[in-house]
Amino acid sequence: MKKNILSCFLFLCTATLTLSAQEMQEQDAQFIRKIYDEALTNSNSYNWLEYLSLEIGARLAGSPEAAAAVEYTKQIMDTLNLDDVRLQEMMVPHWVRGDKEVVRIVNSSIGDVDFHVLALGNSDGTGPEGLTAEVIEVHGVEELKELGREAIEGKIVFYNRPMDGKHIHTFRAYGGAVDQRVWGASAAAEYGAVATLVRSMSTSIDYVPHTGVQIYKEGVPRISATAISTKDAELLSDLLKREKVKIYIRSTCRMLSEKLSYNVIGEIKGSEFPDEIILVGGHLDAWDVGHGSHDDGAGCMQSIDVLALLGQLDYQPKRTLRVVMFMNEENGGRGAKKYWSTSNEKGEYHMAAIESDAGAFSPRGFSCDADKGVFDNHFAAVKRWESFFQPYGVNIYKGGSGADIGAGKSQKGILFGLRPDSQRYFDLHHTAIDTFDKINKRELELGTAAMTALVYLLDKYGLEGEKGR
Amino acid sequence: MKKNILSCFLFLCTATLTLSAQEMQEQDAQFIRKIYDEALTNSNSYNWLEYLSLEIGARLAGSPEAAAAVEYTKQIMDTLNLDDVRLQEMMVPHWVRGDKEVVRIVNSSIGDVDFHVLALGNSDGTGPEGLTAEVIEVHGVEELKELGREAIEGKIVFYNRPMDGKHIHTFRAYGGAVDQRVWGASAAAEYGAVATLVRSMSTSIDYVPHTGVQIYKEGVPRISATAISTKDAELLSDLLKREKVKIYIRSTCRMLSEKLSYNVIGEIKGSEFPDEIILVGGHLDAWDVGHGSHDDGAGCMQSIDVLALLGQLDYQPKRTLRVVMFMNEENGGRGAKKYWSTSNEKGEYHMAAIESDAGAFSPRGFSCDADKGVFDNHFAAVKRWESFFQPYGVNIYKGGSGADIGAGKSQKGILFGLRPDSQRYFDLHHTAIDTFDKINKRELELGTAAMTALVYLLDKYGLEGEKGR
Repeated sequence: MKKNILSCFLFLCTATLTLSAQEMQEQDAQFIRKIYDEALTNSNSYNWLEYLSLEIGARLAGSPEAAAAVEYTKQIMDTLNLDDVRLQEMMVPHWVRGDKEVVRIVNSSIGDVDFHVLALGNSDGTGPEGLTAEVIEVHGVEELKELGREAIEGKIVFYNRPMDGKHIHTFRAYGGAVDQRVWGASAAAEYGAVATLVRSMSTSIDYVPHTGVQIYKEGVPRISATAISTKDAELLSDLLKREKVKIYIRSTCRMLSEKLSYNVIGEIKGSEFPDEIILVGGHLDAWDVGHGSHDDGAGCMQSIDVLALLGQLDYQPKRTLRVVMFMNEENGGRGAKKYWSTSNEKGEYHMAAIESDAGAFSPRGFSCDADKGVFDNHFAAVKRWESFFQPYGVNIYKGGSGADIGAGKSQKGILFGLRPDSQRYFDLHHTAIDTFDKINKRELELGTAAMTALVYLLDKYGLEGEKGR
Repeated sequence: MKKNILSCFLFLCTATLTLSAQEMQEQDAQFIRKIYDEALTNSNSYNWLEYLSLEIGARLAGSPEAAAAVEYTKQIMDTLNLDDVRLQEMMVPHWVRGDKEVVRIVNSSIGDVDFHVLALGNSDGTGPEGLTAEVIEVHGVEELKELGREAIEGKIVFYNRPMDGKHIHTFRAYGGAVDQRVWGASAAAEYGAVATLVRSMSTSIDYVPHTGVQIYKEGVPRISATAISTKDAELLSDLLKREKVKIYIRSTCRMLSEKLSYNVIGEIKGSEFPDEIILVGGHLDAWDVGHGSHDDGAGCMQSIDVLALLGQLDYQPKRTLRVVMFMNEENGGRGAKKYWSTSNEKGEYHMAAIESDAGAFSPRGFSCDADKGVFDNHFAAVKRWESFFQPYGVNIYKGGSGADIGAGKSQKGILFGLRPDSQRYFDLHHTAIDTFDKINKRELELGTAAMTALVYLLDKYGLEGEKGR
């Protein structure tokens, strides 16, 4: 009889515990549903992004527009009843494009043909007189060695390895081709090239040139580096199969002296664990063409909206929620460097950081990263939340996080990258057509909702067994 | 000892079977990977759709453009080495829009305001003189009864229940509002209304009017029915809160006598089970504004491309693969009626049918339907293939199929609807902005690839335990 009573007692205990876990889960599911409802019917991110895109527009670090974007996002944060809104100073490179670039095939069998081009960011120009030279096509920096100085010296090196269209996730295709853009100029200069052209990093065959950063190696001549559209790249490649091709390049882009700029930071102090920080962010700078609406105006506005939505729903966080607009992601990363070095000096602990910098398309997942020593525990902790995201088509998986938060890994929290559908992103990445009309309001809001739901779960449950609990 | 030998033997058998199942699975995964590679690098659907969109364009049943689309798709199929390409005759309704419609607020406190409008398909017009009447706003047909004839007689009924933005899947929001468009005119006419206006079925607040079919009830006056843009609907609703509003409507749309038209059908005969048909299809007609690129030029071109891609990969089907371009889905469904009645008369068995009619956005799943008696078995048979689609972000779940294949349910096979991301679809559904520039090549091709992979699995494995095996 005693045994039976004990069994009965244990059964009841278990039943109560089970029920209460289930109830809690239902409560969470309901709150997440509320987050989505609020995001889809009562959020401001679309209007904020419209202003940032159409009134401010392109905003490379150091530009007056970047300063306007700092002021604008600070003003938005000031309306949100946060505990603190502040600017974090740093010096940023100040690169300017100068005159509209010219890249022209000269004296060819098809006559003189002007390409659709954009100088690469941080590149020096040819100077106002331009230069003319013969073109040699390669498909990667490794080909330079095979060809040798003899074949390359005095020529324009044309990098023409396309992004591999067979990748389902287009960021992988980008990752597999972008070294040509980033490192191609100095690599070619080491063999005596006088300039480089690079096939635009694009999944589309069209006339849209894509800029992006290139990096000069110390002690190597700083030759001009220019992106040409994928259609122009195909034309040039076809022509090179038939004849020698000379090209005239003129660009007056140049690096000016550094400018003072800022990260914009807002936060709500946690009521129970104020030392455990949950960061959401994107980068405020954008290339100097187009509106920078997808890259990364959207990620910025979504990040601010995470805090706004939680406020609208009267949610009081236990942990500190911080939104950061990083400056200079595109051509220097100075904002991230400043943020994380300061954070490390202060001994801060970022329990989690979420970056949105992959476009405002329909969200399909979060990829997670963390220091090796803690990854398995952290990933298990967040993977169990995946069922909450199932109604919204969002998965949680292993992968990278983002350029502005990656340095936070050493604090041993968990890092997330929001992963939207990637099919359209590289049609417009770093181009004059990354404009506000390419933004779908619902897709933007669904991304915000997913981020907000993840912040809610992180805030409520933390990462079990972690520091500070 | 004997027992041990037997165990050993059984173990080896199991191991062999397991290995071979695993090998088979790897083989299938590899072939599906080939399908995706081919679709993403060597498919024609995007170019076909460009021609259908830009050269032929809008193509309501009965129009010269619909006839051109029949001829064009037949010509494509003729190039594909199919065993049979044929037209299937039927009579279709022939509705024409007439003059550009006018819907104008008259003598209001904000002056005379012209709305952005489209008459609903199959609607009669007001006639060239137009009509002017006071407006009464309702949020559904059920409100008419409450209001009664006294309140409605002689007035224009304005249906203004929005699509519910909180649905994640926008087709659910559409399903929850579209009765106003389809049944609103006759419902209002029964209470003496002289015309109806309906808020456009759209997820966006803008100036784009959305047409679509409406259906008159027999024996009820055929009053004019016109869609107004969502922005105009909000303006009208606001104004009605302040004052009585009179509106002038003029439309000359009308139904003409029926026209001869066609489904276009192509097929490859199965080598082992020719009587088991696997159908892929979309509808060839489109509304008379825009290009009908997403609705449903895309679904048509994807369907033809399924057969083309399997041919490019030298795949020899065991079952009969049939592609059908259904005519008149938008305002009568005559193509589907003809197709299925003929099929039933012939005693055909469609083991499976896949419809693509939800836009050419990134594919996220297939929803499955079947006759109740066979659903569980069929669903279990196909659900086990879901892991093949996992690398491509495509799920298999229960749900509807599509308007053109639903009638095939009685043949007790399985029906699928391709389900792309739905966020952008109702911005452009049935509008002048459903144009080719809204198509993303990769998204279109990923849909084709998903359909082709599903056809491959259905063809290779059938539905276990089914008729004909």
